[in-house]
Amino acid sequence: MGHRAAIVGAGHTRFGALDAGPRALLRSAVDEAFGSVDRGAERSSIDEAFLATLGFGGWQIGNSSAVLAEEAGVPGVPVTRVENACASGGAAIRAAVRAVEGGARRLVLVAGLEKMTDVPNARRRYWLGVSGDTEWERLAGLTFAGVYGLIASRYLAEHGVGPEALEEVAVKNHDNGARNPKAQFQKRVSRADVRAAPRVADPLGLYDCCPVSDGAAALLIAPAASARTYTDAPVYIDGVGAGSDFLAVQERPELTRFGASRWAADEAFHAAGCSRSEISFLEVHDCFTIAELLAIEDLGYAAPGAAGRLTLEGATRRDGRLPVNPDGGLKAKGHPIGATGVSQAYEVFQQLRGSAGPRQVARAERALTHNVGGAGATACVTIYSRG
Amino acid sequence: MGHRAAIVGAGHTRFGALDAGPRALLRSAVDEAFGSVDRGAERSSIDEAFLATLGFGGWQIGNSSAVLAEEAGVPGVPVTRVENACASGGAAIRAAVRAVEGGARRLVLVAGLEKMTDVPNARRRYWLGVSGDTEWERLAGLTFAGVYGLIASRYLAEHGVGPEALEEVAVKNHDNGARNPKAQFQKRVSRADVRAAPRVADPLGLYDCCPVSDGAAALLIAPAASARTYTDAPVYIDGVGAGSDFLAVQERPELTRFGASRWAADEAFHAAGCSRSEISFLEVHDCFTIAELLAIEDLGYAAPGAAGRLTLEGATRRDGRLPVNPDGGLKAKGHPIGATGVSQAYEVFQQLRGSAGPRQVARAERALTHNVGGAGATACVTIYSRG
Repeated sequence: MGHRAAIVGAGHTRFGALDAGPRALLRSAVDEAFGSVDRGAERSSIDEAFLATLGFGGWQIGNSSAVLAEEAGVPGVPVTRVENACASGGAAIRAAVRAVEGGARRLVLVAGLEKMTDVPNARRRYWLGVSGDTEWERLAGLTFAGVYGLIASRYLAEHGVGPEALEEVAVKNHDNGARNPKAQFQKRVSRADVRAAPRVADPLGLYDCCPVSDGAAALLIAPAASARTYTDAPVYIDGVGAGSDFLAVQERPELTRFGASRWAADEAFHAAGCSRSEISFLEVHDCFTIAELLAIEDLGYAAPGAAGRLTLEGATRRDGRLPVNPDGGLKAKGHPIGATGVSQAYEVFQQLRGSAGPRQVARAERALTHNVGGAGATACVTIYSRG
Repeated sequence: MGHRAAIVGAGHTRFGALDAGPRALLRSAVDEAFGSVDRGAERSSIDEAFLATLGFGGWQIGNSSAVLAEEAGVPGVPVTRVENACASGGAAIRAAVRAVEGGARRLVLVAGLEKMTDVPNARRRYWLGVSGDTEWERLAGLTFAGVYGLIASRYLAEHGVGPEALEEVAVKNHDNGARNPKAQFQKRVSRADVRAAPRVADPLGLYDCCPVSDGAAALLIAPAASARTYTDAPVYIDGVGAGSDFLAVQERPELTRFGASRWAADEAFHAAGCSRSEISFLEVHDCFTIAELLAIEDLGYAAPGAAGRLTLEGATRRDGRLPVNPDGGLKAKGHPIGATGVSQAYEVFQQLRGSAGPRQVARAERALTHNVGGAGATACVTIYSRG
């Protein structure tokens, strides 16, 4: 079906509990993105920008988009904040693809940001709860770990799967994270470590949960036709898809599948005109270990209940037949909410250009990113190919 | 340059201090939009939706987009929250235009919403402050009325204009609002009333400031080519434009012009391929009376300092040569933040179809809407024509 847009530059701060504030994080990711453009790009070429953030560090909760233009050194350009909770980054990329494919823009900046540590406690709690359904989940005391704990319990019972599958997701993603210099946790863990960790929301323990993170990521997106002005190795975006679901999980027909992910994947594959078997690796939204298993199934790579076996067999390891989250995933790399979807595309940019260093996936030709908002309220799927 | 998209249906709650909560407001506006489609539209035709809101009534501050899909009866469709403070509605319309003009979608729902009354005091204060620059304005105690008060003082001094020009904006917009059954204030005021009102931020008094409002508005946007499937009287969108500026007014070279508005207007006129003189009436972002004068100048309809004279001469009245805000504007109609940009397009839909009743503008062929985020941090301009 042809390429719809091209990524020609990408930047990424380290993820973690950082000293830098939100403006500095944005600036750092954007500067690195410009620096990564092989033949260079002028700031003045930017003619639109999108900012993905849930709360901008708590101080600029609304109207933060202009700050991106300021920090990128392009004040005046149209800039829009896109917020779909943890899927904000994916939604911003989708908006950027539309901006360049329609011919309206020549170079679009997408940045994702969250500053979640070093803010007052009340605001930190706010970040973590605000994306869940307020009436039936948050005010009833159901946290995100709680929602995913319920989903995990149900999944294990429904499919007769043991906790080893969840443990193996954590082990694999920590192993990948240990090879990623931008990851929050660059430390391997064993299955015994995962099992012995304090419980957070049974059956999920500490190592089943992604951390609270600061960080930013940025992309430069150009029309496919002009990609080679910037680099001989662009990464093309061939298909985007999105879907939604009821915000409160209680309204949905089942707990162990995310309709939003399934619809987003179907749309993205249809748009890209490629099949699931053509994808070299996946970047999925593993905010909790159970979420990686759901994603593998919802994206069509395993039957319901079968993603655990795939994981235990090693298929999703970096050297397996379907690598999943070679960057460590949200689990080990960290999850600064608005940055996550953009960070997934950053990883694809490295992998498809063969520049992922010790975490490089062999023969990476096409990739898929999967970004979820809340506990499946929205989802974005994007499909990429190398130039 | 041809039509880029078409509005084929529009709905609007009354604006004001309402009993209804945010879900009910959304539902009501969307239902009215569907009911307004002359030849009908199926809910199942909706294949994407955009929600413009700053805070969704304070209870679903993040991740609210899925709620629009639920309340519209289209769960599952891709839905994205767009937030550019008071310009969120304009930004959402721009996103919808891109979705249909690229051929990706056949019918897109845009809804704008804010529920600002009947929420805890702390949250109400939050709404009003959160869109201003946090570091240099909000935390220093500078409210929006304060910012616009400074701008108004400077404007009057710089151009040697008296307060009558501001008073006349209030008188005109209240006069228009008195003919709008959806307006929060349907009450005429005299220039003496405006002058005698309590001061809010000198030189701005009570009648110079838009109210705190609840309300929602919704649009159904189709590709231009399929508009006549739905109605013989579509309203076409011919051009959109956007711009940004430094978030804090102190960073800008001047207080009395909004660069964001000027850039947005230039882009929109260029895209629409029409000239300023072809526009029949304007809907501008008069959050304060001074903002209407700035808008008239920034949009290119008066030289700097000359909008007051235009207003005092009656040119901007409903029966003047350039009607401005025939629906009463933010000033009298109300300003539920995320709803405002969508509400402006609702008014254009009524006017260009000749169905604006007692507030109908004569010979309305083309119109322009102008929506500002914060005190000029972002702006959107949209140009429409009748089918």
